Amino acid sequence: LIAAVALQGLPEISSDDDLAALIQAAALQPENTQLHDGDVVVIAHKAVSKAEGCVRRLDEVQPSARAQQLAEELDKDPRHVQVVLDESSSVLRATRGVMICVTHHGFVCANAGVDASNAPAEGTVILLPRDPDGSARGIRAALRAALGVSPAVLITDSFGRAWRHGQCDVAIGCAGLSPLDDWRGRTDSVGRELSATWIAIADQLASAADLARSKDGRQPVVVVSGAERHIIADDGPGARALLRPEAEDLFR
Amino acid sequence: LIAAVALQGLPEISSDDDLAALIQAAALQPENTQLHDGDVVVIAHKAVSKAEGCVRRLDEVQPSARAQQLAEELDKDPRHVQVVLDESSSVLRATRGVMICVTHHGFVCANAGVDASNAPAEGTVILLPRDPDGSARGIRAALRAALGVSPAVLITDSFGRAWRHGQCDVAIGCAGLSPLDDWRGRTDSVGRELSATWIAIADQLASAADLARSKDGRQPVVVVSGAERHIIADDGPGARALLRPEAEDLFR
Repeated sequence: LIAAVALQGLPEISSDDDLAALIQAAALQPENTQLHDGDVVVIAHKAVSKAEGCVRRLDEVQPSARAQQLAEELDKDPRHVQVVLDESSSVLRATRGVMICVTHHGFVCANAGVDASNAPAEGTVILLPRDPDGSARGIRAALRAALGVSPAVLITDSFGRAWRHGQCDVAIGCAGLSPLDDWRGRTDSVGRELSATWIAIADQLASAADLARSKDGRQPVVVVSGAERHIIADDGPGARALLRPEAEDLFR
Repeated sequence: LIAAVALQGLPEISSDDDLAALIQAAALQPENTQLHDGDVVVIAHKAVSKAEGCVRRLDEVQPSARAQQLAEELDKDPRHVQVVLDESSSVLRATRGVMICVTHHGFVCANAGVDASNAPAEGTVILLPRDPDGSARGIRAALRAALGVSPAVLITDSFGRAWRHGQCDVAIGCAGLSPLDDWRGRTDSVGRELSATWIAIADQLASAADLARSKDGRQPVVVVSGAERHIIADDGPGARALLRPEAEDLFR
């Protein structure tokens, strides 16, 4: 049994909030079930980004000539485009109003994850956390220190897909979780090798958690139970392990 | 609360099995919880393909010159490559031992979904169902007729992703489910428009369900509860609605 339930009673997250302390306080409220070692605390990245101050005010952004040209082609705010460029190591596509970027972390996603929805104030945009695996490790350590339990921590964003409509939540940071479950070389129920079974557990957990939250930004944290076999005592390789290296990329 | 639990006690599925009848019989066993209207019955496509006879024997396949050439380049069985070509409307990439194909349904995936693991016998390969949305509708109608409840039915496969390691389960067929949840134009908690929130519910349900099953092929069916707000009385547009049309594709 896999179960995903949104954490109730979290306040709106602001800059310099101690997110781990807020999660810990909410988790002790009677309307929530207690956190356990085998749980996964799944956090929509915007809560992390806001707490870490990964927010930019557009009126402080000076768009470059390249940003101005792209903004004209894409019918976007040149300051917003400049922030996307600042967050990108490269831009794979810029057409039809969308920029598909490679972030400095190596994630391939629309607009380098820069988003105005659920931003703390008009005229601001939210960035991805600078080091989402580090953020996950920090929150995990704080929860362990405060509560004496050591759930895995997963930080997520909603990514589009090249060939499918809609977005799915994926892992951009994690700690205490094996992000990939490798069955390659293992055998099926009649002993034949499973040819290509290498499961993106962290991304599937992110998607499962998203089903349990409201999308208005009031439920950034979801607790998933039942995934104990993927939880590890050390922090593990992080969501970085999910990135396909550019040299293996067939579609860049 | 979203919950996913594997259906216990299903036999190995064979050609001409009545899959809906087997699911219905298993669902009535005491070790399983009853099926309800708001549930989603998530079925790994191999069970559907086997029941529908979507299986080919490699010793009956005559590889074409193109299949022989590709097989040599990719170090694969030319008969397996021929089956992949038969299942594809086009091949996007063929390199490093992998073929990324567009299936006749329009899915973009490795080897057109053709797979030897969990196949019914040595020397056979399993194809995707011919019409997975139709299969889902048929199973839903049969469950409704037999049990008097009308859960949604989702048929899944594990797809790789262009820029991320590992596979996630996605929807290849569905009935009774809104596959996409469209928040575009709706507002966040402080009234700002959610810029690009268009959620692939069917794919997230597929991924959530996969976390609840063992990978050895013995648990092809998982029941997900708690997604009532995405369940619809009519069968809906099916997983076909998740396909990005070729004209909108930036990476083909």
